[in-house]
Amino acid sequence: MQIKPYKKSFEYTYSLGVFPTLELLEHKSDSVVKILLTSNSMENTGVKKIFEISKKQNIEVEINDKAINRISKKDNVYAVGILNKYCDRLKPGNHIVLVNPSDMGNLGTIIRTALGFNICNIGIISPGVDKFDPKVIRGSMGAVFRSNIEYFESFEDYIKAFPDNKKYAFMLNGDTYLQELETPSQEFTLIFGNEGSGLDEDYFKHAANGIKIKQSEGIDSFNLGISVGIACYEFTKKCI
Amino acid sequence: MQIKPYKKSFEYTYSLGVFPTLELLEHKSDSVVKILLTSNSMENTGVKKIFEISKKQNIEVEINDKAINRISKKDNVYAVGILNKYCDRLKPGNHIVLVNPSDMGNLGTIIRTALGFNICNIGIISPGVDKFDPKVIRGSMGAVFRSNIEYFESFEDYIKAFPDNKKYAFMLNGDTYLQELETPSQEFTLIFGNEGSGLDEDYFKHAANGIKIKQSEGIDSFNLGISVGIACYEFTKKCI
Repeated sequence: MQIKPYKKSFEYTYSLGVFPTLELLEHKSDSVVKILLTSNSMENTGVKKIFEISKKQNIEVEINDKAINRISKKDNVYAVGILNKYCDRLKPGNHIVLVNPSDMGNLGTIIRTALGFNICNIGIISPGVDKFDPKVIRGSMGAVFRSNIEYFESFEDYIKAFPDNKKYAFMLNGDTYLQELETPSQEFTLIFGNEGSGLDEDYFKHAANGIKIKQSEGIDSFNLGISVGIACYEFTKKCI
Repeated sequence: MQIKPYKKSFEYTYSLGVFPTLELLEHKSDSVVKILLTSNSMENTGVKKIFEISKKQNIEVEINDKAINRISKKDNVYAVGILNKYCDRLKPGNHIVLVNPSDMGNLGTIIRTALGFNICNIGIISPGVDKFDPKVIRGSMGAVFRSNIEYFESFEDYIKAFPDNKKYAFMLNGDTYLQELETPSQEFTLIFGNEGSGLDEDYFKHAANGIKIKQSEGIDSFNLGISVGIACYEFTKKCI
């Protein structure tokens, strides 16, 4: 295995940073190939923990400043986990579906925020950013390792797999304001479009309840991460 | 005036991009010194609008690719507004107070999100990031020009200026869950700590109602922008 900057075509990826690497070891230890640490990291409490866990689980640990530098570029990281990519399938329950998300930082934030509201199943309608990109993993602070994230060729494929979830599509011309919505007691799916183009309204209004977050005229729309956060908050308010 | 990369010590700053520059022209035209455009921008609809408005208001427009390149670095921008810094004072009403915010992108997102919920008065307790930094202006998509953003030496100074607003401090060990809170009908202030360190709880619990967003144990806390978005949503739900 060559340790070089990540590419989507790799069969492995990297968790950059102490916290994401601890999450990796705790939740996807089967996928870990090796842990890399910098030589100046030994006093760090989190790094000590990484050492302990790795030892218990017979995971190889290597001190390798050069390799870390090569992978993480300008980021200042003490620890890197190298892991094989693995297969995720959505589990029944409440879901978020992102249609063609294009921003890696956004995806990380969304995964982490959803997890904060106990929503850990996220569908992505292709094409969408690579959930294994180290930027997504880092943006999620490792929450990606606690979540099931599955890609679907089309929204129809998602509907076929989960026909019974009640579906809500967030769009600028939704019929119902989130502020006034009676949230469901059955399992739900919250659907969000791409950062720039939103959802193809004709289609999604047909397939789901159209929802809009009431807003002032001072802005054209809330950003994607904020919208997902607010929607998760409202939909889980009764039950969290 | 030399057109070079922004520094906090400058008496002027830049709006980078067509949309923020249109917001600048609409809401702070008195502060505009000059508009810069790239030579390849002439077909852009927004740029045409910038031309029109500038002409009407006798604002100088200059085609200057080199200067734009120098200021905006890697960003691909068609238009730049050069503006003198101006003085903002909070107006009575609903407020957000950020204690020592340190991330420029976050501040921009927060200004924009708050405006989306009709909250356009934001206090910053010093030290905090520079609201005039072009990264903040751009992150806010120009919402900064529609908002009043005032710096205070201390939270005490803020309280003295606005003693009657009902104050809510968001902190990990708040007494009341936002999900269960009866939001007030009087004017309110939502207080948020620094991205890393949060609020000094002893102090703020004394000065305000301590509020916490109920979350799963899967994450340690929501990020600042998401928290502000959710809080603004809940507090304006009745009245927006």
